[in-house]
Amino acid sequence: DAGVAADSASASAAAQAFAPLDTFLRRHNGPRDSDVDAMLQALGFKSLDEMISATVPDAIRLKEPMTIADGEYAEKELLAKLKDIASQNQIYRSYIGTGYTDVVVPPVILRNILENPGWYTQYTPYQPEISQGRLESLLNFQTVVADLTGLPAANASLLDEGTAAGEALVVCLNASRKKTRNVFFADENCHPQTLAVLRTRAEGFGAEIVVGDYKTFDFASLGDRLTGALVSYPDTYGNIGEYKALADQIHSQGAQLVAVADLMSLAVLQPPGEFGADIAIGNTQRFGVPLGFGGPHAAFFATTEANQRRIPGRIIGVSRDAEGNRAYRLALQTREQHIRREKASSNICTAQALLANMAAMYAVYHGPEGIRNIADRIHRFTQVLAASVTAAGHTVENTSYFDTLKIRVADGSSAAEVHARADARRINLRKIDDQHVGVQLDEAITREELAQLVEVFNGDVSALDSLVTSVAQTAAASAAIPAGLARQSAILTHPIFSRYHSETEMLRYITQLQNKDLSLANAMIPLGSCTMKLNATTELIPITWPEFGQIHPFAPREQTKGYAKMIQDLEEDLATITGMDATTVQPNSGAQGEYAGLRAIRAYQASQGESHRNICLVPESAHGTNPASAVMAGLKVVIVKCDSKGNLDLADLEAKAAKHAKNLSAVMITYPSTFGVFEEGVLKAINIVHSNGGQVYMDGANMNAQVGLTSPGHMGADVCHLNNHKTLAIPHGGGGPGVGPICVKKHLAPYLPGHPELVKADGTPQSAVGPVSAAPYGSAGVLPVTWSYVKLLGGRGMTEVSKTAILNANYMANRLRDHYSVLFTNENGMCAHEFILDTRPFGKTAGVQAIDIAKRLQDYGFHPPTMSWPVPNTIMVEPTESESKEELDKFCDAMIAIREEIREVEEGKQPKGDNILTNAPHTISTLSAEEWNRSYPRQRAAYPLPYLKERKFWPSVSRIDDTYGDLNLVCSCPPMDTYQ
Amino acid sequence: DAGVAADSASASAAAQAFAPLDTFLRRHNGPRDSDVDAMLQALGFKSLDEMISATVPDAIRLKEPMTIADGEYAEKELLAKLKDIASQNQIYRSYIGTGYTDVVVPPVILRNILENPGWYTQYTPYQPEISQGRLESLLNFQTVVADLTGLPAANASLLDEGTAAGEALVVCLNASRKKTRNVFFADENCHPQTLAVLRTRAEGFGAEIVVGDYKTFDFASLGDRLTGALVSYPDTYGNIGEYKALADQIHSQGAQLVAVADLMSLAVLQPPGEFGADIAIGNTQRFGVPLGFGGPHAAFFATTEANQRRIPGRIIGVSRDAEGNRAYRLALQTREQHIRREKASSNICTAQALLANMAAMYAVYHGPEGIRNIADRIHRFTQVLAASVTAAGHTVENTSYFDTLKIRVADGSSAAEVHARADARRINLRKIDDQHVGVQLDEAITREELAQLVEVFNGDVSALDSLVTSVAQTAAASAAIPAGLARQSAILTHPIFSRYHSETEMLRYITQLQNKDLSLANAMIPLGSCTMKLNATTELIPITWPEFGQIHPFAPREQTKGYAKMIQDLEEDLATITGMDATTVQPNSGAQGEYAGLRAIRAYQASQGESHRNICLVPESAHGTNPASAVMAGLKVVIVKCDSKGNLDLADLEAKAAKHAKNLSAVMITYPSTFGVFEEGVLKAINIVHSNGGQVYMDGANMNAQVGLTSPGHMGADVCHLNNHKTLAIPHGGGGPGVGPICVKKHLAPYLPGHPELVKADGTPQSAVGPVSAAPYGSAGVLPVTWSYVKLLGGRGMTEVSKTAILNANYMANRLRDHYSVLFTNENGMCAHEFILDTRPFGKTAGVQAIDIAKRLQDYGFHPPTMSWPVPNTIMVEPTESESKEELDKFCDAMIAIREEIREVEEGKQPKGDNILTNAPHTISTLSAEEWNRSYPRQRAAYPLPYLKERKFWPSVSRIDDTYGDLNLVCSCPPMDTYQ
Ligand SMILES: Cc1ncc(COP(=O)(O)O)c(C=O)c1O
Ligand SMILES: Cc1ncc(COP(=O)(O)O)c(C=O)c1O
Ligand SMILES: O=C([O-])O
Repeated sequence: DAGVAADSASASAAAQAFAPLDTFLRRHNGPRDSDVDAMLQALGFKSLDEMISATVPDAIRLKEPMTIADGEYAEKELLAKLKDIASQNQIYRSYIGTGYTDVVVPPVILRNILENPGWYTQYTPYQPEISQGRLESLLNFQTVVADLTGLPAANASLLDEGTAAGEALVVCLNASRKKTRNVFFADENCHPQTLAVLRTRAEGFGAEIVVGDYKTFDFASLGDRLTGALVSYPDTYGNIGEYKALADQIHSQGAQLVAVADLMSLAVLQPPGEFGADIAIGNTQRFGVPLGFGGPHAAFFATTEANQRRIPGRIIGVSRDAEGNRAYRLALQTREQHIRREKASSNICTAQALLANMAAMYAVYHGPEGIRNIADRIHRFTQVLAASVTAAGHTVENTSYFDTLKIRVADGSSAAEVHARADARRINLRKIDDQHVGVQLDEAITREELAQLVEVFNGDVSALDSLVTSVAQTAAASAAIPAGLARQSAILTHPIFSRYHSETEMLRYITQLQNKDLSLANAMIPLGSCTMKLNATTELIPITWPEFGQIHPFAPREQTKGYAKMIQDLEEDLATITGMDATTVQPNSGAQGEYAGLRAIRAYQASQGESHRNICLVPESAHGTNPASAVMAGLKVVIVKCDSKGNLDLADLEAKAAKHAKNLSAVMITYPSTFGVFEEGVLKAINIVHSNGGQVYMDGANMNAQVGLTSPGHMGADVCHLNNHKTLAIPHGGGGPGVGPICVKKHLAPYLPGHPELVKADGTPQSAVGPVSAAPYGSAGVLPVTWSYVKLLGGRGMTEVSKTAILNANYMANRLRDHYSVLFTNENGMCAHEFILDTRPFGKTAGVQAIDIAKRLQDYGFHPPTMSWPVPNTIMVEPTESESKEELDKFCDAMIAIREEIREVEEGKQPKGDNILTNAPHTISTLSAEEWNRSYPRQRAAYPLPYLKERKFWPSVSRIDDTYGDLNLVCSCPPMDTYQ
Repeated sequence: DAGVAADSASASAAAQAFAPLDTFLRRHNGPRDSDVDAMLQALGFKSLDEMISATVPDAIRLKEPMTIADGEYAEKELLAKLKDIASQNQIYRSYIGTGYTDVVVPPVILRNILENPGWYTQYTPYQPEISQGRLESLLNFQTVVADLTGLPAANASLLDEGTAAGEALVVCLNASRKKTRNVFFADENCHPQTLAVLRTRAEGFGAEIVVGDYKTFDFASLGDRLTGALVSYPDTYGNIGEYKALADQIHSQGAQLVAVADLMSLAVLQPPGEFGADIAIGNTQRFGVPLGFGGPHAAFFATTEANQRRIPGRIIGVSRDAEGNRAYRLALQTREQHIRREKASSNICTAQALLANMAAMYAVYHGPEGIRNIADRIHRFTQVLAASVTAAGHTVENTSYFDTLKIRVADGSSAAEVHARADARRINLRKIDDQHVGVQLDEAITREELAQLVEVFNGDVSALDSLVTSVAQTAAASAAIPAGLARQSAILTHPIFSRYHSETEMLRYITQLQNKDLSLANAMIPLGSCTMKLNATTELIPITWPEFGQIHPFAPREQTKGYAKMIQDLEEDLATITGMDATTVQPNSGAQGEYAGLRAIRAYQASQGESHRNICLVPESAHGTNPASAVMAGLKVVIVKCDSKGNLDLADLEAKAAKHAKNLSAVMITYPSTFGVFEEGVLKAINIVHSNGGQVYMDGANMNAQVGLTSPGHMGADVCHLNNHKTLAIPHGGGGPGVGPICVKKHLAPYLPGHPELVKADGTPQSAVGPVSAAPYGSAGVLPVTWSYVKLLGGRGMTEVSKTAILNANYMANRLRDHYSVLFTNENGMCAHEFILDTRPFGKTAGVQAIDIAKRLQDYGFHPPTMSWPVPNTIMVEPTESESKEELDKFCDAMIAIREEIREVEEGKQPKGDNILTNAPHTISTLSAEEWNRSYPRQRAAYPLPYLKERKFWPSVSRIDDTYGDLNLVCSCPPMDTYQ
């Protein structure tokens, strides 16, 4: 019927006329329409769809477009829409504590770090010459932690306090060596979520967690089965334990003492290192990081020298560069799971760098005196509150405290009444039981707020002034702090903490560090497997809205409806994207997702009476986190080979699956493979595993090539994770935050991780499976980024994104093919969204290694691609869809020019081992030296291509000596006199 | 009574315990307490107060501490308090138009320019080698303006459309030459505020403004008395005038045509240059700059080549550097009032650089196609609205339109009913009269909003879809655009507007430019007379709150109570600070304040029957804006001498005051003087002028040395201005925004500027004096910065600030005294908050000029101080209180090292004219050149002091050739091929 057709044509013309003009897709994608045409032409395709058909096997393609409810907003509209949702969160003043407090984020840090792409878009500082800024800041973080805990070695953050406890357990187990030493004590007054995550983590290692009261527990009875003990300092109800005797006791049994410590309290309490703790862990949120409904925050890990090489995660170390100048770098990387794989005992990869930087800067900003004053003030107000509630007839049950009180309400009253009065004032207190209420104070508290709290407890507000003058003015003098536990040692003694206390100085310090780091604000960061795409401003703006930032993770559900709605939307959309049935956003990194996913598989198998299934097939090409996660989930890793084309060796898979059929738990597959190819055989591989009784885990690191084209669920996987910090626009922050949600098929849905706070109406747990993160929704505070990304693009836009990512990669591979060999492609010569360039031959021909090419790329103004992974001595390039054709071409020009430089060495025009590549990168200082005895001119070293005159990024140090750094490990700030 | 004393002691102890810990003062001021002690010791004082006593004459000191109601908030509390006030503003959707529209600020520009200290804290780019970033961006601005208006020469912004009209008038007058050619026609359908400011401006020049209907006016009757004509394109009611014939007519009379143009409409309308306009002016607010209750926004000024050297304000030009590379700079500065003084015809100094940058970036972001699509969409929706309201029985009275309609409501209805329906939907329309309503659409409009508008006019919403498809899809095809007035020429043709359309590219472009510019985020900017102090994050955060940003300046008063409260607070506090009785915040720069103040004096004198008083005494040391403002206010400038110590020559003053007693209108005094000294004689000077019947105008540029110690009012001045962008923390933005409020004694209060929108309840004007700015409260959008500054510090804090500013300056002067001669100090050897170093002797001894020292300072990582003002070939240093002792010391170290470098030339170790000073600054490119034939080593050029290894800022070009640039004037972007 022509009339109907005309009607619908005109309706769609009207819809088009009214559609927002400035669609986000064209801002997110790099290439303009005309560029896309030119690129397709270069590749010999008539359309994007034709190119995709040649790249993605038809057998796995989605048959229907992916639909995302309610997507494709204009940016302005999106923000309005999200603001509506955010407004359903109620901002209460929170004294719930339990590991999370209100904070005062110094505005200069808020604006210039958390809201600054110069700080949030960098990658993990694997290229130290162009990362000295955040390396210095993370070293400051380690110094803060080491200083306050009184332990010499610290790392550059962990995911949260709960997982830090898990990591500590493993360090104890590893230190113990003997398998039978596997009992770990945990004091019952640790935070509930910390205990819960610890219990989860213990399972895979076959460790036994014994929870008890450290004061009465019979440690001796455990003999040499004891591997360690965890205590909380102060504990969850505020008491300050005296752990010296305990430390002696458990040391005498050959075990280690782990203290969960509150960093602020350590300003005034004896540091754990001084009473004998071997490990201190905890959350640094209260050092100026917003609550964010539970995260992201940086956890810390500090320990003794003896444990130094067992520290999980990333450690910043001090080394020197080619000219002997001091330089920072990632130290001791051989400990990490990307090297140790199934022998690793931790899978942590993405951590919490951005938040660690905030916490470090908070310490730099306040300095020793400032932090101490804050701590004293908090304590003084806590004393006032204690006196006031006592006067009002309640009982403070604490034997000691820093800032947290457990209050037994007066006879005749009830906790419910107290909570009701609090609620009327938009205040949250901790709910303990019918008769007990918990309160933790924080730096944000004002007189008015204290007065309100006093009212909540029916106290006498008029007595406040006299109380505040009568209580001890410092924690050191307070009766609430046990004798001998007041801190004697000075805090934050390094001069870096006493230099930048005016806003001007602070701003300049932040700027100075920022300018040493190449971020996405400077140039492409084509890191294979990392998907360094645009982190759009519109996506980032909401995360600093107070409606998202100032929500305590354990706030009553009535107050968090905005988060609930946003998370529900996201869970649904992520399930759509992955072709699955259910989602959890709890894991706060990809590796955590892997672990949570494998645990879901195991729990499911246990429910089927198949808990004996303990074999995990892992391709040799897998990312190191895969085997590490499998081990942590209690699985045995069996390696599956890849063939010469980089594909999974299906025969080997079939043989191993059959061999282990009885005990086969799962296979872990990355798709497209870590070699950057859409393997044809994936469906067959999935089938093999399923038919041998196994489950299929799909690693979603490469989802940026899949979204809208295919999906793990569509291919038949049972569970997958997503790296929201790759595919879904959360910025990398220089090494975190991350979000690693997992999506599962229906049968696995009941086995997604639970959480002590996630209970049904009847109070029973929502899931029988333990939590993998300290907060119920992990790093909820950055979820608005992904929600916004998904809604701005919708299903159609995200599909275009995938296609463009593939186009960009193939365009580059094609340009570079005449100069380098592109290692793995499909039968049509196509790569997925990334590709590997083989740089191995140059070792022979020119003595040039991948690392030399990477360092030389710095001279060309680019962040080098991923190096030596998954294939040693090669580089893996992933441009992402956000890069423009101009940028891709610049990078290709650089790579081609480098190839010509290599040729000069091959041809003897420059000597092997002392040429423009092996001497790279070149700093300004080198280039302006009086002497120049090199085989190439200065200007060629500096400006090898014309575009560099317009845009050049300068490395701040020369090539760094890794070996020296590892041999002479220094992982806190060196003394000031070494600075000049 | 001891009891009372004890009570009050304990009350104050309690108050102290409860006081906010992290007070803003210690963040704002640079020196720590211990630094202050060390600095006082170096100066030989026991206390700050002792130092102040030796500096500020006792006779002028305040006897009581200055009290600011309700000051000294903690930063967090301040933001909460201001949010409460802001919330009293109601955000309505505005279609009021009249020169201001809603906008969509591209988030990448919002975050990375408006909210980025790297862009908002720079100074005017007087030092081009370290300012190439914003110079390029401002050149883009000029290119946008030139391109869209079709006129070849444009400047880098004016204060607002009203003052731009005033400037255009003066250009016409100047071009005319003959005094009798002084009648200026203005079409009655220009915006009312533009006409009002034009009328104000005309007064001082004795020009006659004739307002009429250009279509019927008898121009010939004016013969050669006609100097110019102003028309609006489109006009205030939306009609698009056909001005070609008019242009011919007035050209035939030897006069010029000035078109007020709307930049967005020019994307689709014939540009003014093509129909014969000689000058085009207008507001660029709708290019992505928030409404902000009327400002700050950048106005533009474009004209013919013939008028080029008459353009007011700053012009960016293209020149070359010492190596022949292209480089940008401020061109044709000899036109400006700091050179021409009382011969200048404009006083504009601070302009609107930051907002011009935003507008330029908006054009870069959208590009030709984007802007054209936006304009087409706006027009298409306007057609839909026109059709819809017509169908609903109303009459669109426009003969033509782009985006604005004047609607006569249907018989039986009334404008009031329409406004009531609008109000119910939180919509503002323009109030014209009982029967007419005005509507202007903008880029922000959505389908929902258009539907709401249709409802407001009782239109048929269901017809929207068919209407939108039936109306012309582009403005070029629309019947509403007069034949021949659709734009034929392409827009934004320069490649710069087609390069950066993805967010990633845009972000990198912004970052790349930012990194070329030395801002306060990098180092001290010790510009004498400019007070480059901290612009604290907390002060800046509120300006992008929608409650402040999204308010139309002519919104009904019920909706702007938050602004009213904030402005009232501010007016009171500024009166307190200056010791005056009344304040207006309307002037949007210091120079505007001068002009407004002098006008108040004249109006007052007229009210006393003394309008003949027309002599203004101006010391020879005065800033160039003083004499220029006096001339603009219709005064004759008589110069008063200064003595050899830099003090006002009181004898000369007395003689001249006496001589002109009959006609004496005013004296303009800067205090402390522009030589940086608290002159003893100021009271006497004031007395002399008063006793000769004159009024005293005090230039407040140096108020940073006065606040809380003395005040203009206290000393006896009648009126003064403040530079909020100096003393009161508004950032300089690379040359604006500014706010120049004036404060007056009671007798002058009735003569503060009014505004068409400022009417009493009975509809009569609040002031008989005309407005000096287009918006009633000038640059209201940045007033929250000053409000916050004042409230954060309170009277006590601001007084400490003044003392610290004086301390910092004296500390530096003292350190430098052995190396340079400090030109002016008081009898105790003390300077005020700034001091002048005499560099004149080095011309003779070493051929080194002040400029060489300035350029060499760039190599030391500093922004040079003010050069050659107020004394030629000297430099004037103003550190401000925000700089730390460490930074002051670094700067002194640099100056001392430079003195030694000069000595080397004096001693013949380096040749005159080719040495480390005359060749400065040194770029990376120079330093890494293959050849090095200089008399000093590369490393000394690059890193003359050790601190530079830690922090160095690199100039991006070598020294710029000013003469070349002025001889070969190019003031829009040069063609792309010259870029490589
Ligand atoms: C293939 C693959 N799997 C897993 C991970 C681990 O993710 P995360 O760093 O978020 O823990 C990565 C990280 O780069 C990866 O590339
Ligand atoms: C002494 C003096 N007066 C007046 C002005 C003019 O102020 P504005 O630039 O805000 O117009 C200045 C500017 O630097 C100045 O230094
Ligand atoms: O802007 C000045 O001329 O000081």
